[in-house]
Amino acid sequence: MATMESMTYDELEVGTQASFTKQLTDDDIIMFATTSGDVNPVHLDDEYAKTTMFKGRIAHGMWSAGLISATLATVMPGPGTVYLGQNLSFRLPVKIGDTLTVTLTIKEKLDDKKNLVIDCKVVNQDDKLVVTGDAKVMPPREKMQLEVPVLPEITIA
Amino acid sequence: MATMESMTYDELEVGTQASFTKQLTDDDIIMFATTSGDVNPVHLDDEYAKTTMFKGRIAHGMWSAGLISATLATVMPGPGTVYLGQNLSFRLPVKIGDTLTVTLTIKEKLDDKKNLVIDCKVVNQDDKLVVTGDAKVMPPREKMQLEVPVLPEITIA
Repeated sequence: MATMESMTYDELEVGTQASFTKQLTDDDIIMFATTSGDVNPVHLDDEYAKTTMFKGRIAHGMWSAGLISATLATVMPGPGTVYLGQNLSFRLPVKIGDTLTVTLTIKEKLDDKKNLVIDCKVVNQDDKLVVTGDAKVMPPREKMQLEVPVLPEITIA
Repeated sequence: MATMESMTYDELEVGTQASFTKQLTDDDIIMFATTSGDVNPVHLDDEYAKTTMFKGRIAHGMWSAGLISATLATVMPGPGTVYLGQNLSFRLPVKIGDTLTVTLTIKEKLDDKKNLVIDCKVVNQDDKLVVTGDAKVMPPREKMQLEVPVLPEITIA
């Protein structure tokens, strides 16, 4: 059984890093479009997408941002983290088959409320920056070890 | 056949508004967790979620942000919009069955590059703010009318 462990405010120092990697699939784009309602044809319609500046279908920018959320929630600080805010700069498009790596670095410890500002960099397989920004989170008050939930199987027609 | 139409920089004035509404389902959460890799148990595990400050499962904050993306891409400015940046403040949790309404308001026209700063407010069915922030986008250079893509059917086991 897979588990994930959270890190508390006191365990995290400015400069502490963590990362998470995921490859974009066609199914990922379809699920993101369905769950969000963002049916922009640049993500879904091959023929239209080829006529755009991107020359083909691309991921939703907010999909890449979702990987930041995944890293915060499952790696550092991990489960129990409360997401307070995020800023995002979308720098490069992401295509099906691209592999993104999120790297988080603790940037600032806000002692008054024990919140953290975390630098977020998302790069592709060519080490080019695709998304950058800062997250603001409240890490869990107590260290926890939790079972990784098993997701139901999803079939796309 | 459903279509959506884009709006250009010149058509949009400071104060122009548009909105988009979506109700959160259990399937939306599962799809968001699968596509992003964010398997935080607070979104997926009923028993664990009941022990948290949220007293039950909640949506990923970035799911609500995805609705902002949907509004930008499908309503205003609509298809052809390039998403440059977004800041987000996550204010209240969202539960299964909640209905969110995104309202976008043109806040600033940046004449040098013809980009827009757009105020984003997301409220729930009780008119409480759940997410706020600003988007920065490049609206399409030319007005377009595009067919709304039909998504494949998704089955969750």
